[in-house]
Amino acid sequence: MQQFYLSSLSKNDTEIHFDKNESKHMSRVLRKKVGDPITITNGVGHRFSATLSHVDHKACTAIINQCMEISPDPYQLHVFIAPTKSNDRMDWFVEKATEIGVHEITPIICQRSDRKVIKQERLQKIAVAAMKQSLGAYLPMIHPVCDFSTSLNKIKGTACIAHCQDTNKVAIDSLSFKEKSISIFIGPEGDFTPEEIQAAADANVTAITLGEKRLRTETAGIIACHSISLLYP
Amino acid sequence: MQQFYLSSLSKNDTEIHFDKNESKHMSRVLRKKVGDPITITNGVGHRFSATLSHVDHKACTAIINQCMEISPDPYQLHVFIAPTKSNDRMDWFVEKATEIGVHEITPIICQRSDRKVIKQERLQKIAVAAMKQSLGAYLPMIHPVCDFSTSLNKIKGTACIAHCQDTNKVAIDSLSFKEKSISIFIGPEGDFTPEEIQAAADANVTAITLGEKRLRTETAGIIACHSISLLYP
Repeated sequence: MQQFYLSSLSKNDTEIHFDKNESKHMSRVLRKKVGDPITITNGVGHRFSATLSHVDHKACTAIINQCMEISPDPYQLHVFIAPTKSNDRMDWFVEKATEIGVHEITPIICQRSDRKVIKQERLQKIAVAAMKQSLGAYLPMIHPVCDFSTSLNKIKGTACIAHCQDTNKVAIDSLSFKEKSISIFIGPEGDFTPEEIQAAADANVTAITLGEKRLRTETAGIIACHSISLLYP
Repeated sequence: MQQFYLSSLSKNDTEIHFDKNESKHMSRVLRKKVGDPITITNGVGHRFSATLSHVDHKACTAIINQCMEISPDPYQLHVFIAPTKSNDRMDWFVEKATEIGVHEITPIICQRSDRKVIKQERLQKIAVAAMKQSLGAYLPMIHPVCDFSTSLNKIKGTACIAHCQDTNKVAIDSLSFKEKSISIFIGPEGDFTPEEIQAAADANVTAITLGEKRLRTETAGIIACHSISLLYP
């Protein structure tokens, strides 16, 4: 099964008009024909079953047969993560986090960040592709890059910071998640600085550990997403 | 902290002789000097603290000050996984599985496998790099590629197969792991065939689900490793 994405679709729509790009892809690459069934999501929880009614490399249309409401995750996870030195690893994090389950991602610039520029649009495209591929119906939101100190003002609900310093930390699997919103901070390759860790503590962010191994930034991000999906009540 | 790897080291050794390659790396790239402290693992549970006693681009030596025994994981996880079409994704799986925790990996050839050749040596090198990087002390073993049907004879302890067909399946987080050895089978991009799933059932392999999303092979592999590390009693 292949899933398409059209953000403009809403619950009560009865027909879909695909744009030029998508129409070309549908007719030329996928060789879809009139009468073929297709599945589309709008990325905000609706999945539509439709039948192609017109196929043309410039303008395909489909008739919607059914709209299903897909239950959202019981939690809302916002990952604040320092961009990795290599673009690949950041791309990879966004793909895997979308597959596993994440709702918002904010790239953060920390004192020890090597990379300070992020292509937000590129990451958002990766999230779209991963949502389609994994048959998800909710598109994670990729926010613009943000300073670490500013990002502390954006937390909601339970907030945690994963770092490698020798301070009092709680294992992620011993946390009890009582709030629906969860924010997790993941640092750069050289870790957060002691000042950043203190600033987080002052903002009531709980210091956590993800295990005994020294994890790469993107691995820590993935583990955080998957831990919440397993541990959330 | 940087960790080196030398498989030939054993518990009672007092001195280390590095080979030409490692010596060159140590002296030229890392610019290590006599008196510098270093950390080395042998990949079978020992971590050594040592001091460089001779630095030369052909033959570095170090005096071992201490040997620590690192506790092994309480479980032994063997992941049988179909190689992904793209080499990158398989490399990536081996890196992340090593960081998170895996003990043996066997690439399996399934009926719907696209790729049937695997560079075992290359994957083993990736595992070494990931073990060093994550400060692990146990090197996962990468086995030669194996047919799916043959691999069913190699399972030990609790065995599970993750597939996407509509059959009776158990959620991985509802399994109770009573045995130390765990084997998990992850299929190719087109999934296992019904015959393969039947053959697994005949071999007492429990069908499991890793969630509602359709996961890529490498994502399923990572999630399996991390689920066990969180769920194992």
